[in-house]
Amino acid sequence: MTRPPKRKAPGKNAAAGEKNLDAHRCNVALLGFGTVGSSVARILCERPNTHLRLTHVLNRNVARKKVDWLPSSVQWTEHIDDVLSSNADIVVEVMGGLQPTEDWIRRALASGKSVVTANKQLIARSGPELIGLARQMNQQIQFGASVAGGVPVISGLHDGLGGDELFKIRGILNGTCNYILSQIEANGIPFATALREAQRLGFAEADPTEDIDGLDARAKLAILARVGLHCDIKPENIVARSISAIDSVDFEYANQLGCTIRQISCAELKTEPKPESKVKATQLFAAVQPALVELASPLARVEGSQNLVVATGRYGGETVFGGHGAGGHPTAVAVVSDILAIARSKQATITMTTSNAGQPAETTPTVTADFTAQHYLRFLVRDRPGIIASLATILSRSGINIDSVLQKPGCPKSHLPFLITLEECKASLVEQALQQINSLDFLVQPCLHLPIL
Amino acid sequence: MTRPPKRKAPGKNAAAGEKNLDAHRCNVALLGFGTVGSSVARILCERPNTHLRLTHVLNRNVARKKVDWLPSSVQWTEHIDDVLSSNADIVVEVMGGLQPTEDWIRRALASGKSVVTANKQLIARSGPELIGLARQMNQQIQFGASVAGGVPVISGLHDGLGGDELFKIRGILNGTCNYILSQIEANGIPFATALREAQRLGFAEADPTEDIDGLDARAKLAILARVGLHCDIKPENIVARSISAIDSVDFEYANQLGCTIRQISCAELKTEPKPESKVKATQLFAAVQPALVELASPLARVEGSQNLVVATGRYGGETVFGGHGAGGHPTAVAVVSDILAIARSKQATITMTTSNAGQPAETTPTVTADFTAQHYLRFLVRDRPGIIASLATILSRSGINIDSVLQKPGCPKSHLPFLITLEECKASLVEQALQQINSLDFLVQPCLHLPIL
Repeated sequence: MTRPPKRKAPGKNAAAGEKNLDAHRCNVALLGFGTVGSSVARILCERPNTHLRLTHVLNRNVARKKVDWLPSSVQWTEHIDDVLSSNADIVVEVMGGLQPTEDWIRRALASGKSVVTANKQLIARSGPELIGLARQMNQQIQFGASVAGGVPVISGLHDGLGGDELFKIRGILNGTCNYILSQIEANGIPFATALREAQRLGFAEADPTEDIDGLDARAKLAILARVGLHCDIKPENIVARSISAIDSVDFEYANQLGCTIRQISCAELKTEPKPESKVKATQLFAAVQPALVELASPLARVEGSQNLVVATGRYGGETVFGGHGAGGHPTAVAVVSDILAIARSKQATITMTTSNAGQPAETTPTVTADFTAQHYLRFLVRDRPGIIASLATILSRSGINIDSVLQKPGCPKSHLPFLITLEECKASLVEQALQQINSLDFLVQPCLHLPIL
Repeated sequence: MTRPPKRKAPGKNAAAGEKNLDAHRCNVALLGFGTVGSSVARILCERPNTHLRLTHVLNRNVARKKVDWLPSSVQWTEHIDDVLSSNADIVVEVMGGLQPTEDWIRRALASGKSVVTANKQLIARSGPELIGLARQMNQQIQFGASVAGGVPVISGLHDGLGGDELFKIRGILNGTCNYILSQIEANGIPFATALREAQRLGFAEADPTEDIDGLDARAKLAILARVGLHCDIKPENIVARSISAIDSVDFEYANQLGCTIRQISCAELKTEPKPESKVKATQLFAAVQPALVELASPLARVEGSQNLVVATGRYGGETVFGGHGAGGHPTAVAVVSDILAIARSKQATITMTTSNAGQPAETTPTVTADFTAQHYLRFLVRDRPGIIASLATILSRSGINIDSVLQKPGCPKSHLPFLITLEECKASLVEQALQQINSLDFLVQPCLHLPIL
């Protein structure tokens, strides 16, 4: 198989380099070349110093999918057997749907390949069985992209908060609902109008039932409950209530109560001792529904199609994960992060070392604090005529533009605070000007200089 | 060595169980038994189904530290050699300080033990060397607790966002500064008063220099830049500016600009092609300083001693991690999560399987949506006398208390919306009452029922 030229280890250690590279290399096959699939391929191609190599792209009618920016070594196919019989180490499933997807994933695991999938409905339904099959085959199945797109909440709950005993997970897991509710709130429009607008802009499907009625979110909640609360729960056992009954008048009332309305997915574990026995009864309170949330809550501040998850633990309290819940690139980040995690663990198993497989090399860049920003200059002066003029002269000599001058009323002339904001420029320019300014005799104290981020 | 009785596998498979347990067991030694150390010990003891066993606790004057809630098998010692010569697999360092800590960590790694540390100053200064030493010894060093306490930002950047190409990290990494600035803002008090108050409440040290002048935050920023931006940067190369010059008048001005003031740690990687050569010049813009941030930014909403990190990637955009940045329990969660990560990878190496070592077993609880909450009932009625009376009667018969009744003015009598909020009760009680209510003839549509979270 031809390798892309840039992979060749240069110089006199080329042979050793090649061998080393082969041992560390991880071959990746991609099932599905839609929005997420092509983003995954793009990230894999653009990633520097990577040991990951894309070997196959599978799609229906693959001819019309071919792109010129992938290496010629990539095999385009419509046949799963081409992938299963290949030397791919990791099969990435971003086709969606339950069948033939599940069969193909099972066959990939059974043929000794690890799997990365973004398929929430499949993982919500068959996750435990697929994980069991993966273990049996000494392989892995990762599904970080199945919930909240690019927000690393699956790894966050499993690894980052693995040391806590989580008992509650609340989240905004469906960007479509969040967008529609935000629009009803912001524009006082009826639900039906907000839905049509979301459909027009591509934020809602032609058939929006999965999103609006909470079926999408409850599959994600089932996955989070399994990963974070260690509860085996089927999505169909989670009550899901539609947001379609919400009217703009409800936002008016909610606001009067200091709240807003969001589609909230919530799972909370409660263990209570049964009076009649020593066994504790564990109940999982779980629902996906529109609910009032306090304006001060992070859940109330989630805008447009963003996602947010708040996990509550016995020891660590509340931890928040937020970001882009959908979209090709953010979802692809989650997929590639999973690929890297598998590649790292495969290499650890081979070489018995903690490796940095697939990690970009460290650079030692020059470090500077010379941010370009708008600036805030706060003065405390003994007032007299001509102060602004002399400051403005010094600033303009340095090529710095004043944006605004603010002075709060009612301050004593001997200790007069006032503010100058500057248009965007380098911090070092401002510091130079301040060296002159700080020697002026009308200043009570040196000027306070802050960047405006 | 005696095992705590509850570890014994019961029944006829006891022998096999014991053997299996031994192969999977991971012995943990704890250096330091202060706030964080004792929290780590407590979590390890209380954790169900764990394969982790605490074997040693090292502290100065260890006699006065002994507690009765640890198993008697734990060896209490003042001598590092007791730990280094033991069968501990993982050494957890939560003593702080640079020496003898660094020596001890080096000796632990050199004697074939993995290390978990919460020591930001040490990792900021010597992280790369210690990681190198760990690799050389086929061991690991994890330091998730060194930045932002219980917020899993190290694993989030390394694993969760490993597939992205991050170029900017901004954060509120010092709870003391955030508390002091919040207090100046909320109460209009001078900096010195806010500092004294923070000291009195234990939020600031007697010598607050490390926090106030940004030295604590810049060590954390150096670690984040290394993990997230792959930049090898020394903390002393990061400009740190004190928050001590901030006055309450600055918050007044900042608010007029739609901003607030926070101590912001920021690192941003910029790569620009050098005109004279093909090599790209990489600059890291990095500083810890008080800065104006827009009120709409998540950074502006961080309250009290919370921490927050916003990571920006080329593909995934902005991702937010927030939570408790300090405190014994949250920091201990980060430490135990690191211990589990090492235990998992050790087991993977031994058994060549993807294991769930150290993970609590899954439970299959009963699932219910019957949350106890306050409730929002919104009606649309044809107005007539007695409506509230008939609703109130039905609700009170179900034992449900009304909290408030709201009606917005100016609506037509034939389509009159109004709101009843209920005191906390079970959702099922409300649903029962609504079955009766929804058959009342003055309703234009069924009542909308939302929980208030």
